[in-house]
Amino acid sequence: MTHSTEKLINMIENKISSLPLNQEPQTLFEPIQYILSLGGKRIRPLLTLMASNLFSDDTEAALNAAIAIEVFHNFTLLHDDLMDKSDMRRGKQTVHKKWNPNTAILSGDAMLIEAYKYIAKVPVDVLPEALNLFTQTSMEVCQGQQYDMDFEERDDVSVEEYIAMIRLKTAVLVGCSLKMGALAANSSKQDADYLYDFGINIGLAFQLKDDLLDVYGETAKFGKKLGGDILNNKKTFLLIKALELSNKDQNEELNKWISLEKFDNDEKINAVKNIYNELNLKSIAESLMKKYYLAALNSLSAVSVADNKKTELTNLAESLMYREL
Amino acid sequence: MTHSTEKLINMIENKISSLPLNQEPQTLFEPIQYILSLGGKRIRPLLTLMASNLFSDDTEAALNAAIAIEVFHNFTLLHDDLMDKSDMRRGKQTVHKKWNPNTAILSGDAMLIEAYKYIAKVPVDVLPEALNLFTQTSMEVCQGQQYDMDFEERDDVSVEEYIAMIRLKTAVLVGCSLKMGALAANSSKQDADYLYDFGINIGLAFQLKDDLLDVYGETAKFGKKLGGDILNNKKTFLLIKALELSNKDQNEELNKWISLEKFDNDEKINAVKNIYNELNLKSIAESLMKKYYLAALNSLSAVSVADNKKTELTNLAESLMYREL
Repeated sequence: MTHSTEKLINMIENKISSLPLNQEPQTLFEPIQYILSLGGKRIRPLLTLMASNLFSDDTEAALNAAIAIEVFHNFTLLHDDLMDKSDMRRGKQTVHKKWNPNTAILSGDAMLIEAYKYIAKVPVDVLPEALNLFTQTSMEVCQGQQYDMDFEERDDVSVEEYIAMIRLKTAVLVGCSLKMGALAANSSKQDADYLYDFGINIGLAFQLKDDLLDVYGETAKFGKKLGGDILNNKKTFLLIKALELSNKDQNEELNKWISLEKFDNDEKINAVKNIYNELNLKSIAESLMKKYYLAALNSLSAVSVADNKKTELTNLAESLMYREL
Repeated sequence: MTHSTEKLINMIENKISSLPLNQEPQTLFEPIQYILSLGGKRIRPLLTLMASNLFSDDTEAALNAAIAIEVFHNFTLLHDDLMDKSDMRRGKQTVHKKWNPNTAILSGDAMLIEAYKYIAKVPVDVLPEALNLFTQTSMEVCQGQQYDMDFEERDDVSVEEYIAMIRLKTAVLVGCSLKMGALAANSSKQDADYLYDFGINIGLAFQLKDDLLDVYGETAKFGKKLGGDILNNKKTFLLIKALELSNKDQNEELNKWISLEKFDNDEKINAVKNIYNELNLKSIAESLMKKYYLAALNSLSAVSVADNKKTELTNLAESLMYREL
C-alpha cells in the first residue's frame, strides 16, 4: 500500500517533535530543538520514506534513517550559517545569532552525533551498508561545502567544477536519502542504486532551480528578497556561465559590478540580470535542469516496482522542479 | 603474547601516518593531517590496543577502533581550541590560528565523520555495540564540554558538579577506549565493563593530576608555564575546593584576584597558590586522585585474565598518575 505524502510527513513531524532532546545541559540541547522546530519542507526524510514505501508497506524501519538524515541536514545548516555569517534562516534568527558562535559549534557537533544515533537504529542486517553510505555521504557534503567556500575566493571556477561542487554539497544527500529508504526496506542492490541516481539528478536539478529562483522567482511567492546571490557575488550557475559566455563588454560590466564595494542594490541586480538576459541564461539553465530531471525520471522508471507505486515520488520530483519558492 | 607498549605505539603511529588523507580539497584535509601529526602521547588508542591484547594476540582488529578514538579525540581538541580561543597546542599553532575559524569548524566536522569511518570497520559481530558505545561517549564528551563552558559563567559550581563534568569531558572517552579494545577482542561483557570502570577512574585521576600539575608541577619538566589555570580563573578542582573551604578572609582574597582585570602574573599565581597551601589543597587533591587510582586498580584486578597480562596496563596507569608533565 502506498502511503500518502501527507501521512508520511505526519510521521516525520511526530517523530521529530518527540525526539528526546529535553536533556541536560539545556545550553547544548535547546539550540538543537530550536533548529529542528523551524520546519522546512522535510524533503529528504520524505524521500527516504517514499523510497522505502516502494518496497514495503512498513515504513517504520526507514523512519530512524529518515530522522538521521533530517538531523544531519539541519546540522549542516547550523554550521554553514555560522561559516557564512547568515543571521536568518526560515524567517528566524540562526543559532549563532540567537545564542553565540560557540553554541553553534558544539550543538552542531552534538547533532552530527545524534544523527549517527538514529543510523545505528536501522535493522542490523543492513547496518554496515547504511553506516558506510551515511559516512561517505556526510564526508562528501563537507567536501562540497569546502569547495563552495574555496570557489568564493577564486575567479576562474568552471561550470564543470560548479556542477561537481553542487553534486557533493546538495545532490549526494538527496541520493543517500532515497538509497537509505531502499536499504531499510531490503530492496535489491540494483534498485537502491537506481534510486540513488534518481536522487543525484533530482538534487542537481533542484540546485539549478534554486539558482534560477534567486533571479527569476516571483517575489511574492519566493518569500525572500530576490537577487541576494547577485548582491553577494555568489558563484551560482548563472554567474559562472555568464562569465564564460560573455563578450568583452559584458565581461567588463560584470566584473565592474562584482568588484564595486558600494552600489544601489536594485541597480546592481538589474544590470547583472540584463546581462543574464542578453546571454539567454534562463533558458540555458532551464535546459540543463530539464536534462537532469529527465535523467532522474529515467532512473526512477528503471526501479523494478509497478509504475503506480511511483506516483508520490514522481509528483514530489515534479513539484520540486516547478516550485516557485 | 603481550605486546610491548613500544610495539603498540608504533602500530598506532604507522597507521596514523598512513591514513588516506591526501585528498581533495586540500583545504579540508590538510588541517586534519596537521593536527594528527602534532603527536601527543596517544594514550587513548594505546589503551584500546592494550585492552584488546588482554584477550587476544591479534591487535589488528582493535586498531581501527583505536584510530577512531584518536581521530575523535583530536577533533575535540580542534573544536575546543577554537571555542576556548587557544592559539597554541603542543608547541604549534592551533588550526583556527594557522588557517581560520571556518577551516577549524569544517575540518573538525570532517574528523568526526572520519572517526565514524573507522568505527564502521570493527568486526561486524560487535559493530552495533561498538557503534552505540562510541555514539554515547561522543555525546557525553560534548555534554562535558558544554558544562565546562557553562561553569566558567557561574560562581557556585560544587565539587560534585566538577567531578560530574570531568567524568563526561575526560573520563568517559578513556573508559570507551578500553571497552572498545575489549569488544574488538570479543571479551565477556563483564570484563568489558570492568575495563570501562578502570578507564573512568583512571580518567578522573588523570584530570585531577592535570589540575595539580598546573600549580605544583616542575616548570622545567612540565614544559609550559605553570599557573595558567590560575591566571585564567579556570574552575579546576583546586579553585572550586578552595572557594568551598576558605574562611572569610581567604574567600575575599580569592575573589579579589578572580575579579581583578589587571595584575602581575607572578603575584596572582603566588597569592592564589598561598591560599591553596593554607587550605592543604595539594594533599586533598592527591588523596582524591589516589582514591580514584585505587578504584581503577580494583576494577582492573577483577578482569578475568592472568595478572601478568595486565602489567603493561598497570604500568601505563601508574605512569599517568606519577607523571610530571
